[in-house]
Amino acid sequence: MSPSTAPTSTGTRGETVPTVPPAHPAVDTADVYALLERGRALSTPVLRAAVDRLAPPMDTVAAYHFGWIDADGRPADGDGGKAVRPALALLSAEAAGAPPETGIPGAVAVELVHNFSLLHDDLMDGDEQRRHRDTVWKVHGPAQAILVGDALFALANELLLEIGTVEAGRATRRLTTATRKLIDGQAQDISYEHRERVTVEECLEMEGNKTGALLACAVSIGAVLGGADDRTADTLEAYGHHLGLAFQAVDDLLGIWGDPEATGKQTWSDLRQRKKSLPVVAALAAGGPASRRLGELLAADAKSNDFETFSEEEFATRAALIEEAGGREWTSQEARRQHAVAIEALDGVDMPEKVRAQLVALADFVVVRKR
Amino acid sequence: MSPSTAPTSTGTRGETVPTVPPAHPAVDTADVYALLERGRALSTPVLRAAVDRLAPPMDTVAAYHFGWIDADGRPADGDGGKAVRPALALLSAEAAGAPPETGIPGAVAVELVHNFSLLHDDLMDGDEQRRHRDTVWKVHGPAQAILVGDALFALANELLLEIGTVEAGRATRRLTTATRKLIDGQAQDISYEHRERVTVEECLEMEGNKTGALLACAVSIGAVLGGADDRTADTLEAYGHHLGLAFQAVDDLLGIWGDPEATGKQTWSDLRQRKKSLPVVAALAAGGPASRRLGELLAADAKSNDFETFSEEEFATRAALIEEAGGREWTSQEARRQHAVAIEALDGVDMPEKVRAQLVALADFVVVRKR
Repeated sequence: MSPSTAPTSTGTRGETVPTVPPAHPAVDTADVYALLERGRALSTPVLRAAVDRLAPPMDTVAAYHFGWIDADGRPADGDGGKAVRPALALLSAEAAGAPPETGIPGAVAVELVHNFSLLHDDLMDGDEQRRHRDTVWKVHGPAQAILVGDALFALANELLLEIGTVEAGRATRRLTTATRKLIDGQAQDISYEHRERVTVEECLEMEGNKTGALLACAVSIGAVLGGADDRTADTLEAYGHHLGLAFQAVDDLLGIWGDPEATGKQTWSDLRQRKKSLPVVAALAAGGPASRRLGELLAADAKSNDFETFSEEEFATRAALIEEAGGREWTSQEARRQHAVAIEALDGVDMPEKVRAQLVALADFVVVRKR
Repeated sequence: MSPSTAPTSTGTRGETVPTVPPAHPAVDTADVYALLERGRALSTPVLRAAVDRLAPPMDTVAAYHFGWIDADGRPADGDGGKAVRPALALLSAEAAGAPPETGIPGAVAVELVHNFSLLHDDLMDGDEQRRHRDTVWKVHGPAQAILVGDALFALANELLLEIGTVEAGRATRRLTTATRKLIDGQAQDISYEHRERVTVEECLEMEGNKTGALLACAVSIGAVLGGADDRTADTLEAYGHHLGLAFQAVDDLLGIWGDPEATGKQTWSDLRQRKKSLPVVAALAAGGPASRRLGELLAADAKSNDFETFSEEEFATRAALIEEAGGREWTSQEARRQHAVAIEALDGVDMPEKVRAQLVALADFVVVRKR
């Protein structure tokens, strides 16, 4: 779907993405794919070399996680994810007037931290599937998921610090701050699952920590490595933070109404996990008959012993109530809102016009994606 | 037991510690306790302030882990461990001619990394007790053990990097390298548990990673923060590395023959966990009838389904075979060997004589401790 076509959510699965305001003509979708591909092409060899440093069997477990080999150790060409972060880290260097290559260690460090969190979160959340494949703890056991996650986190810091410059120290500090927020966000996410009510503000704070912080870091880390001052880095982070919130709002829509073929997750994935995601929280806060009915159902679900065996229809009922109460529409609007704030933040930084247009196009992409 | 008295292992539990060569008269045992107490007194407030930064409930879980509160959240005066590392980090600063206070952020960062590894290792190893109390995963669940471990690791880097100096960047890099080795060591430890035979060399390599690396870092980090050059830091690390190997050899003796009252662990703790620790590995490598009989028993144990219900006597039989094959004596000698190499390494660094004497006394203490 191109940003300039299609209505907002139509109510069918796979058509959930919010419409973005008129496309920014400077960069089209093909260019965004080229940017993502550049990020992947420049960062993957460095990422693979970093993972090769791990002692066995951690190198193998990590290679499985990244999709480079299958569960039996045979080479695979797995789905390594969208690679939005590496693309942002390279653009970040260019935003500071440095060549994109300057951002590579930052791109790889951010990817390592992102994947550290995926390994640990999948275990904590009991998620059995990611990117259409069994998760690491499912294939290699919980101990390896913990251990390899730890190793990727350490590797991220090592990679940056061995550059040995003052800039690399500043970049590592920003990455560490982002990682702490990421962990705070996961702690909030877990605690919210046990609570009956979560406010929209709490949910947004959690998502800002869990998704916004690392995306923000991706957008500043290349610039910092390229010698940008703190004010420039902070402004780029503001773009990344709001982009992260837009990204997460779309993720929350896909988590309920996404097409399993595209997302690689089960149908109604977030509902099955009792996730207090934005559409749910917004629907519960909306008031009105559908909101109240949803609240009653979810309260009963929390106490139910046979929740695990619920039929497709039962989840569909809950999804329909969320939509009727306005949770889906509110979340679509929230994605557009955050998208707009992100793009506005870019005005605060002097940068080559081409880079600005590319950052805008990436923001558009994040909001219209289907997976 | 003072370093100058007592024979080597007598064969009774709690009397396992190897005798150290004639005491170094400049510093007596009381001074060592004063050094440990100074390390604790100067680092604990900073450690507590760091832990207070964690989002709830991680702050509470961490406070439980450190023994500051009990499982119900009531203030406690728990056993925070021996605190050898903070004492070393402060001495490390003094070795570089800086005031001990310069080492405080290093002491706290090393303690944070040490405790990150304890939280994760206890979960991976299924250990239910530490320092006479239920482990975090037992009380607060696996997810909190993972999450709070991650948070302590991030906090360690944050604490150092927010100092913002070139020295702090170098210190963080050394800490990151040590952490990577720590993780490598845990990976080796886990993989060895599934293998029938482990060589003495493999065991020493694993223990060098798991215990030597972070002790080495503790002994260099204060000096680096105090402006020491890399050669000085490397030499101090050599002392710390061998001290760590001596420390671990004693730990391995205590893990089989230690007094549960003193160690806070079960009787025959390492045997119950099928640990391929130094005494076991050395006994298996020794050859002779006791060694062969031990090999047969352990091979059968590995396949046994009722290993969990073994009686005290069955573990005592294995311990006696390890001793008869010479594993206990070899490990005692190894502790003394590493102790001597550690002290010799100190000759490579110019430092105040008082500091040198204190580092020697700490090495003596590590080798004669009962817990």
